[in-house]
Amino acid sequence: MKVSVVGATAYSSRELLKLLARHPEADVIHLGGRREGSPCISDIFTDLRGICDMELGGLGVEDAPEKPDVAFFTLPHGVSQQYVPKYLAAGVRCVDFSADYRLPDLALYEAWYGKHADPQNLERAVYGLPELFREEIAEADLVANPGCYPTAVILSLAPLVKEGMADLGGIFVDAKSGVSGRGNKVDEGSMFLECNEDVRAYSVAGHRHEPEMEHVLEVVCGEGVDLTFVPHLVPMDRGILSTAFVRSKGPADAGRLQELYEDFYAAEPFVRVCPPGEQPRTKNVAFTNYCDIAVTVRKGDRIIVTAAIDNLMKGASSQAVQNMNVMFGLEETLGLL
Amino acid sequence: MKVSVVGATAYSSRELLKLLARHPEADVIHLGGRREGSPCISDIFTDLRGICDMELGGLGVEDAPEKPDVAFFTLPHGVSQQYVPKYLAAGVRCVDFSADYRLPDLALYEAWYGKHADPQNLERAVYGLPELFREEIAEADLVANPGCYPTAVILSLAPLVKEGMADLGGIFVDAKSGVSGRGNKVDEGSMFLECNEDVRAYSVAGHRHEPEMEHVLEVVCGEGVDLTFVPHLVPMDRGILSTAFVRSKGPADAGRLQELYEDFYAAEPFVRVCPPGEQPRTKNVAFTNYCDIAVTVRKGDRIIVTAAIDNLMKGASSQAVQNMNVMFGLEETLGLL
Amino acid sequence: MKVSVVGATAYSSRELLKLLARHPEADVIHLGGRREGSPCISDIFTDLRGICDMELGGLGVEDAPEKPDVAFFTLPHGVSQQYVPKYLAAGVRCVDFSADYRLPDLALYEAWYGKHADPQNLERAVYGLPELFREEIAEADLVANPGCYPTAVILSLAPLVKEGMADLGGIFVDAKSGVSGRGNKVDEGSMFLECNEDVRAYSVAGHRHEPEMEHVLEVVCGEGVDLTFVPHLVPMDRGILSTAFVRSKGPADAGRLQELYEDFYAAEPFVRVCPPGEQPRTKNVAFTNYCDIAVTVRKGDRIIVTAAIDNLMKGASSQAVQNMNVMFGLEETLGLL
Amino acid sequence: MKVSVVGATAYSSRELLKLLARHPEADVIHLGGRREGSPCISDIFTDLRGICDMELGGLGVEDAPEKPDVAFFTLPHGVSQQYVPKYLAAGVRCVDFSADYRLPDLALYEAWYGKHADPQNLERAVYGLPELFREEIAEADLVANPGCYPTAVILSLAPLVKEGMADLGGIFVDAKSGVSGRGNKVDEGSMFLECNEDVRAYSVAGHRHEPEMEHVLEVVCGEGVDLTFVPHLVPMDRGILSTAFVRSKGPADAGRLQELYEDFYAAEPFVRVCPPGEQPRTKNVAFTNYCDIAVTVRKGDRIIVTAAIDNLMKGASSQAVQNMNVMFGLEETLGLL
Repeated sequence: MKVSVVGATAYSSRELLKLLARHPEADVIHLGGRREGSPCISDIFTDLRGICDMELGGLGVEDAPEKPDVAFFTLPHGVSQQYVPKYLAAGVRCVDFSADYRLPDLALYEAWYGKHADPQNLERAVYGLPELFREEIAEADLVANPGCYPTAVILSLAPLVKEGMADLGGIFVDAKSGVSGRGNKVDEGSMFLECNEDVRAYSVAGHRHEPEMEHVLEVVCGEGVDLTFVPHLVPMDRGILSTAFVRSKGPADAGRLQELYEDFYAAEPFVRVCPPGEQPRTKNVAFTNYCDIAVTVRKGDRIIVTAAIDNLMKGASSQAVQNMNVMFGLEETLGLL
Repeated sequence: MKVSVVGATAYSSRELLKLLARHPEADVIHLGGRREGSPCISDIFTDLRGICDMELGGLGVEDAPEKPDVAFFTLPHGVSQQYVPKYLAAGVRCVDFSADYRLPDLALYEAWYGKHADPQNLERAVYGLPELFREEIAEADLVANPGCYPTAVILSLAPLVKEGMADLGGIFVDAKSGVSGRGNKVDEGSMFLECNEDVRAYSVAGHRHEPEMEHVLEVVCGEGVDLTFVPHLVPMDRGILSTAFVRSKGPADAGRLQELYEDFYAAEPFVRVCPPGEQPRTKNVAFTNYCDIAVTVRKGDRIIVTAAIDNLMKGASSQAVQNMNVMFGLEETLGLL
Repeated sequence: MKVSVVGATAYSSRELLKLLARHPEADVIHLGGRREGSPCISDIFTDLRGICDMELGGLGVEDAPEKPDVAFFTLPHGVSQQYVPKYLAAGVRCVDFSADYRLPDLALYEAWYGKHADPQNLERAVYGLPELFREEIAEADLVANPGCYPTAVILSLAPLVKEGMADLGGIFVDAKSGVSGRGNKVDEGSMFLECNEDVRAYSVAGHRHEPEMEHVLEVVCGEGVDLTFVPHLVPMDRGILSTAFVRSKGPADAGRLQELYEDFYAAEPFVRVCPPGEQPRTKNVAFTNYCDIAVTVRKGDRIIVTAAIDNLMKGASSQAVQNMNVMFGLEETLGLL
Repeated sequence: MKVSVVGATAYSSRELLKLLARHPEADVIHLGGRREGSPCISDIFTDLRGICDMELGGLGVEDAPEKPDVAFFTLPHGVSQQYVPKYLAAGVRCVDFSADYRLPDLALYEAWYGKHADPQNLERAVYGLPELFREEIAEADLVANPGCYPTAVILSLAPLVKEGMADLGGIFVDAKSGVSGRGNKVDEGSMFLECNEDVRAYSVAGHRHEPEMEHVLEVVCGEGVDLTFVPHLVPMDRGILSTAFVRSKGPADAGRLQELYEDFYAAEPFVRVCPPGEQPRTKNVAFTNYCDIAVTVRKGDRIIVTAAIDNLMKGASSQAVQNMNVMFGLEETLGLL
């Protein structure tokens, strides 16, 4: 399978290139990325030496040496939408890491992200969370790879909202992310001295992933979902731990909830429901495609759902590979264990 | 002022001894601590060399070379209660770091901590949060130094509950603590390899500080408070960031709330209300007695209150010194700036 | 290929089991490890859930369900030597992670490690550094997997000493290791609060890996080598950076040295010589089998050689798999990229 | 004592302002720093709220509201030399944090740092290491505050070279610094994701502090010193651990060396010689003015000297305050314990 990676100088593409190097069916034929003088990607990310030493080329589908079967876009939102339509038009199946195709509602997209240059493809896109939308992904030619926080939070809440057990009027989610959640921009907030030995909340007044979570959960349960999301930055490289605070409709039973989650994810190769009394840890899922989840009942009707993922893997790159596997009918776990 | 430190081998007493060494009115005359062969405290905590090189002695009031004016107890809960009554009987004013005298309701104490050996002094104790109970502390001979999480959470919520603005039926609090929150026990969960690059929730099924928070907030507002608390461990030495999720009774106004917090803490030397748009950071309060607080409104009626303290300082040792200053009529900030 | 892992509860076997799960030719048939009640390995290392869920069995070759082709021993030194001879006697090829078979000189071994229970197999063992001893490893039935520090230091110095360019009378090596270098013992020195935000030297009076380095370098160059080694602990999970300070015999030429190193390792898949001006970083080799090396000339005749490895990988588990690949005539990089 | 701080937006001045706020004799009357709109320093460093809320003013002596007694310059090298002469001319005693006045040899300065704008004051400057130059500092009106690495390394080696025990022809020093050693520039190398979980050497081809170390040690012993210095970056906020590798002239005796160091620093309030078998740790000196030192003998004639300081404190700000105390005849430890 011939692969283009468009936006190769992002952190998430660094991880993606390592995964593709190890994937038995993937053959990267084209790296699109803007840097002066077409350097080797391994001169930028020196850990890639010997793993991927390709030169950077142009971002367009015409820059690929031959037509790829699939293209991964690790460009920022607002930029992906400028390239994706051309790849689609050329018959290339696309997996987009940005937010550009995650929200089918144009007005909602533009309220959070600004003007959209490719609104006509919004409905064509499938939300790339295989645990919930596997069949649609298999058929899709445009997959919107989920945001990192939404991956953890939606997997945490899907069983509850689908079963109608959650009071949808006031869910609170507190999430903690490693610093790679900020991407690889060089700014003051990303400095070691600003992040190390520190915890802080950010985007408390509203984070772009909140409408994404609400929208997808609404698709899952068919009702309006009102969710308040507060992310935090913690001093580690990678990982997200999300803690959802939910009020149950009526009394909640710990045993029944445990069973619900175990059943819901029984066939999923990448979701591990913790046994009672155990909690997810970001370290246990680091560098993997797993999402670990635990559900706990407090005070009769309050439900705490905690989930851990690696934001660069299940929250980005390995989930994209999982999507590719589903899209091309490969073994879903291929190259991911 | 002559000072005993009883339980000198705890992490919190290490910080306390540094503060007392710098305090112009305090003179440590007695270190109580159990270790074979009465070693110097600076042989155990080698960073204390040249700062405090006293030998460890017995834990009892009779082990002090002369009657101290004040004794700090940094013993575990269940042990403090065995020594405090004797110091009180000898006329020594006491500041206890453990949970032993924080809950005046014996049944509630025993439900969470087990049998109490000194129930008769429960009512005598004053909760040592000077921002709320300054006058009582000034008169007290037994001060229960607050828990680290309760310090942050109670200061976060006191203005809201006192003003009757919070729906008291369902407050959620998510807190993140550095590893020193575990104390200095040597166990698997405290190992570097278990904590570094990891975030995890713990005591999700119920944490002992929850009833302490509920109880004190009830004293503040005169009504029942129902609060669900979930603590997390983050990879840093010290610091707590707490995030409280509150539903407002009726619509919440950001400007009015900001003013409420600023007014409530206007005269407090150690509480800093963040200007709008700024968030507390544990790093900004590390090694200080400050509590930084921010209040944010979301979706009309949801209030997010974030607070940062140093768990070893405002959450333990420097708060104890602040209490001592209040008890003895000293300048409240003495030795703490 | 049927594989036994003997000593499965060590940190290095955790990494080994992940590598073997991914290795296309390896099939783990037996986990030897002592814990009450024969638990699943994934109940001890919960990150292994879904990756390796085998039960722990006895440590002996008779505890394997059938005769393995190869056995990895991740037991402490002094313990390996009790089991290895029996596996050898049963015709199983052995890769030992401990120091038990690294020093062919019994007196030297016993001076640093104590009495040896299996001296007769000392000479049979091959030192498992494929870059230097590939042919011997291919024939060996007992491979002594190198120590983590020696791997980095020997690869750093081999080109210099082999070419006769180093003054062998006074090499100094300063090495920095992540905390996993201590193994997974639960002691005060391994606690987060003792390691985080700290750097310290240890074993300054003499570290067991020093004679291992001297011995192997002597094999490489045929002369006596006098090396003084000082290790340090730095606050990170994994990785070793070693810095060797060497006096050149006569003036040293930067260009010629660079060429020497590039030529020496030109055919090696897992040694990457940094281009001039670049330095190895532990982060670039984390979770890989790479060793990155740079050589620099100072003040005419001083040579600084820096090298980075992942102590749990090239310094232990992935190097063991590399050895297995060589022993069984497999592609040397199989399962390691 | 009236104090100017010139260059107030540097990390080292942040620490300095905290120390001066606590110092009983210092009164900061002027903050010089360039930022648009003369903001409050506590709007830039929000942790200073309530500690120092002064506005930034111009950098010149004429910008002070009245003539200060002492001015601290935390400007970069090359910039200090533009302001210091004017303060001196106005009769203000100066403590300069930059390298501008540390090397009395103009040619040596210019070889490493470029053109000097104030060469005439080079000889007037005293090197501000009180343990070695206390009497000169007491008389000085221009003190060159030492570099962070030189502080640790010179204190490590002074006893040895003064006693003539070291082979001066080939000292190697390996040093490890926390990330604040890079200053507060916002660049890729300072990002959390680049520094965390990483160790790397830098400036291996030559670091500016090397000639500073050689020069001062030559002053101490009256002979030429040839020292090769390699610094490393480790993932922590603050702290330097230096490890010096020295060949002894003739056999070295551990007991005699221990005594030499203990005697040499017996009267020093801020140098702590570790008892035999103990090693300095950066954590033990963090946030203090201490330098902890240990000396170890290996293989008869090799001497390892390890030292730990806080690079922002004894390596910069608290050492500057110590110098001020000496210059003005105050108790040397005032405000520093």
